[in-house]
Amino acid sequence: MQNGLNEDLEVTRRGTRAVRVGGVIVGGGAQVSVQTMNRSNCDDVEGNLRELVLAAKAGCDIGRMAVPNVKAASFFGKVAAASPIPLVADVHFDWRTALAAINEGAAKVRVNPGNMGRDGLARLSDAAGAAGIPVRIGVNSGSVLAPGETADDKARVDVMVRRTLEWAGILSNFGFRDIVLSFKAHNVRETVLANRLAAERCPYPLHVGVTAAGRGGLALAKSAAALGSLLLDGIGDTLRVGFTGDLEGEARAGVEILRALELRAAGPEVIACPTCGRTRGDLAGLVAKVEELTAHIRAPLRIAVMGCEVNGPGEARAADIGVASSGGVFRLFRRGVVERRLAPENAAEILAAEAEKLALDYGGDE
Amino acid sequence: MQNGLNEDLEVTRRGTRAVRVGGVIVGGGAQVSVQTMNRSNCDDVEGNLRELVLAAKAGCDIGRMAVPNVKAASFFGKVAAASPIPLVADVHFDWRTALAAINEGAAKVRVNPGNMGRDGLARLSDAAGAAGIPVRIGVNSGSVLAPGETADDKARVDVMVRRTLEWAGILSNFGFRDIVLSFKAHNVRETVLANRLAAERCPYPLHVGVTAAGRGGLALAKSAAALGSLLLDGIGDTLRVGFTGDLEGEARAGVEILRALELRAAGPEVIACPTCGRTRGDLAGLVAKVEELTAHIRAPLRIAVMGCEVNGPGEARAADIGVASSGGVFRLFRRGVVERRLAPENAAEILAAEAEKLALDYGGDE
Repeated sequence: MQNGLNEDLEVTRRGTRAVRVGGVIVGGGAQVSVQTMNRSNCDDVEGNLRELVLAAKAGCDIGRMAVPNVKAASFFGKVAAASPIPLVADVHFDWRTALAAINEGAAKVRVNPGNMGRDGLARLSDAAGAAGIPVRIGVNSGSVLAPGETADDKARVDVMVRRTLEWAGILSNFGFRDIVLSFKAHNVRETVLANRLAAERCPYPLHVGVTAAGRGGLALAKSAAALGSLLLDGIGDTLRVGFTGDLEGEARAGVEILRALELRAAGPEVIACPTCGRTRGDLAGLVAKVEELTAHIRAPLRIAVMGCEVNGPGEARAADIGVASSGGVFRLFRRGVVERRLAPENAAEILAAEAEKLALDYGGDE
Repeated sequence: MQNGLNEDLEVTRRGTRAVRVGGVIVGGGAQVSVQTMNRSNCDDVEGNLRELVLAAKAGCDIGRMAVPNVKAASFFGKVAAASPIPLVADVHFDWRTALAAINEGAAKVRVNPGNMGRDGLARLSDAAGAAGIPVRIGVNSGSVLAPGETADDKARVDVMVRRTLEWAGILSNFGFRDIVLSFKAHNVRETVLANRLAAERCPYPLHVGVTAAGRGGLALAKSAAALGSLLLDGIGDTLRVGFTGDLEGEARAGVEILRALELRAAGPEVIACPTCGRTRGDLAGLVAKVEELTAHIRAPLRIAVMGCEVNGPGEARAADIGVASSGGVFRLFRRGVVERRLAPENAAEILAAEAEKLALDYGGDE
C-alpha cells in the first residue's frame, strides 16, 4: 500500500525500523513524538530541569541538551536522572564526550558525524550498542559542506542526503543499526525534498523539522507547511519545531501540528502508573472513571492517576493535575505539589472537576 | 513533467485554466493569490472599506463580502467601487442577488450552488459571462449533504467532490467555463484529500483553505499544514486562511504561508503606475533607484511610486508608503495620506529611509 493519506482519510506511515528513546518508541509505526532542546547553560542543572518540565507539560515527549565537553557530561547526568522525559545528549566533535554522556544515562545521542570522524563513530557505535540506545545522525544543510566547499541549493540537498547515508552505512557496517536520521534546512523546500529522498533510500526513522525558522507566525508557517507535507505523505517519525529562544512555544507548536494532522489526539491524556504491590484499591476503575468524566475536555491536559505516593507525584511531574493513592486515601497534586486529601469515593469526581477548571486556562484554541 | 516539488527545488504547478478577478489572474500558473472575507455588516460601507484596506496592507490580493439579498447589493457596489483590491460577492440561495451583485461591479461571484438550483445557475452563468467575471463554486464539507442525509468522513469527501464537479459540469454545459472550485473541510485531511481528488478530475483553478480552523496556533498549524502539503504538490491557485474574527491575522497568515513555501517573495514590493501623459520626469529611474535602495529590507512592505497626484495616493491606498509626482515635486504619502513635499533629487533616498523605518515595525519575523 502506498504511504501517505489514503481515501479512507488514514495516513499510512512509511515502514521504518523502531528504536527506543527511554520509554518512547521512535519509528516502526509508533505515534510521532515531539522533541525540543534546552537553552540553559549545561552547568545550570535547575534551569535545565525547569525547561524539561515546561516542555513535558507542553506535550513534548523527548528533551535534548547540549553536552559540549566531557566535564559537562556530569551535569547532563544530573539533569537526565531527574528529567520527566527521556533526555538526548547533543554532542559534536568529540567521541569521548559522547561516551561520557552515554555513561551518564543519555537516552539517545545526537551527533553530526561530519565533525567526529570514522574512528569516533566506531567508538560511539560500540558504546551506544552496549548501552542499548540509538544514535541520531543529525545534519543541517548549513553544516554539510566542508569549509570552502560550495554547492547550489539543489546540489546541497543531494550532498546532504548522500553523505548522511554514507555515515549511516559506516555505523551499520559496525553492526549498529539503531539509527535515526535528520535532514534540516532553513527553508521548507529543501527540508521536504531531503526527507523525501532519504525516505526512499533508507529504512531508518526520520526526525523531521525546519532549522532556524525564526519565530512568530512565519516560523510556525514554515514548520507546519514542511511537516504537514511530509507527515501526510507518511514521512517522519519524530519531530522538532525550532523557534528562536522559545522552548515552550516550540514544544506546543509541535503538538499543535500533530493535532492539526490528527496524528495526536486532542483532549486530556490520562497518565496512570502500571500499578504494583503498593497499589491499594481499584486504580484501573478510577482511571476509567476519570477518563469518562474528562472525555468532553478538548484541552491537551495531562491528568495523572498514580497508585502510591512513593513515585506518584514525582513520576507525574509532567502532569497538570493528578491523584496519588496513599494509605487508603488519595492526595490531589497539581504540577507535582501535593495539595489536599480526597476520599476514594469522590476522588474521580473532584479530579475531573479540577481538570475542567484547568482546561479553561487553555482558552479558545479549539 | 510531474506536478509538485522537483529535484531543482522548483514547484511545478498543476496546469489549470486562468481566470481574471479584477486585475488579479487566478490559475494558469499565475502567482498564488491571497484572499480574505470581510466581517462588517453589509450596510456598513466605511467598516467594509476599512477592512479591505487592512487586508490589502497585510498583503491580501482579493477581498470578499457577503451579499445576503438584492437590497444589500447596492452597499456592495459602493464598497467595490472604492476597494483597494478586487471584491468578490458571496451569495447564497438567490440568483437574483448574484445578478444584482454582478450589476454592482463584483469581480467574481462565489456561490454554493447546492442552494441555488439549476435555473439559478443558468441565470448566473449568463450574467457572469456577459460581465466577463468568474464564478467560484465554493463547497464546505459541512454543507454538502442535504438535511437528514448522512455520510461518514470518507464518503463525505467523495460526495463533496463529485457533486461540485457536477455543478461545474452544469455551468460548463451552459458554455460558461470561468470557474474556480473550492473544497473546504474543518480538518486538514479532508481538505487535502478533496483537493487532490479535484485536481485529478478537472482543469479548473482551485481556491484552497481549511474552514472553521478557529484561531491561534492550532488554526495556523492546520492551515499551513494543509496548504503546505497541497501547494508543494503544485495544487492550489488562490488561498484563504480563515481565523475566527481576525481578518488582518488571516490575511497575514496567508502571505506568511506563501512566503514559507517561497511562493511569494519576501521583502518590499514596489508598486509603480504604468506612467501616462501626466507623468513628468524619469519615473522609471526613480522606481529603479527605490528598488535598489530598499532591496535589503525583508519586511513585506508595499512601496508606491506614482507618476501623478490625480490617482497616485488613491490608487496606492494599499501601500505602506509612497510618493506621487505633482507639478515637478513629489509628495510623500503614508497609507493614502499626503504628508510632505520632496525635491525630485532626493525623493528616492527619503522614500527608502522612510520604508526602512516602517520595516522596523514588522519586527524580527525573519
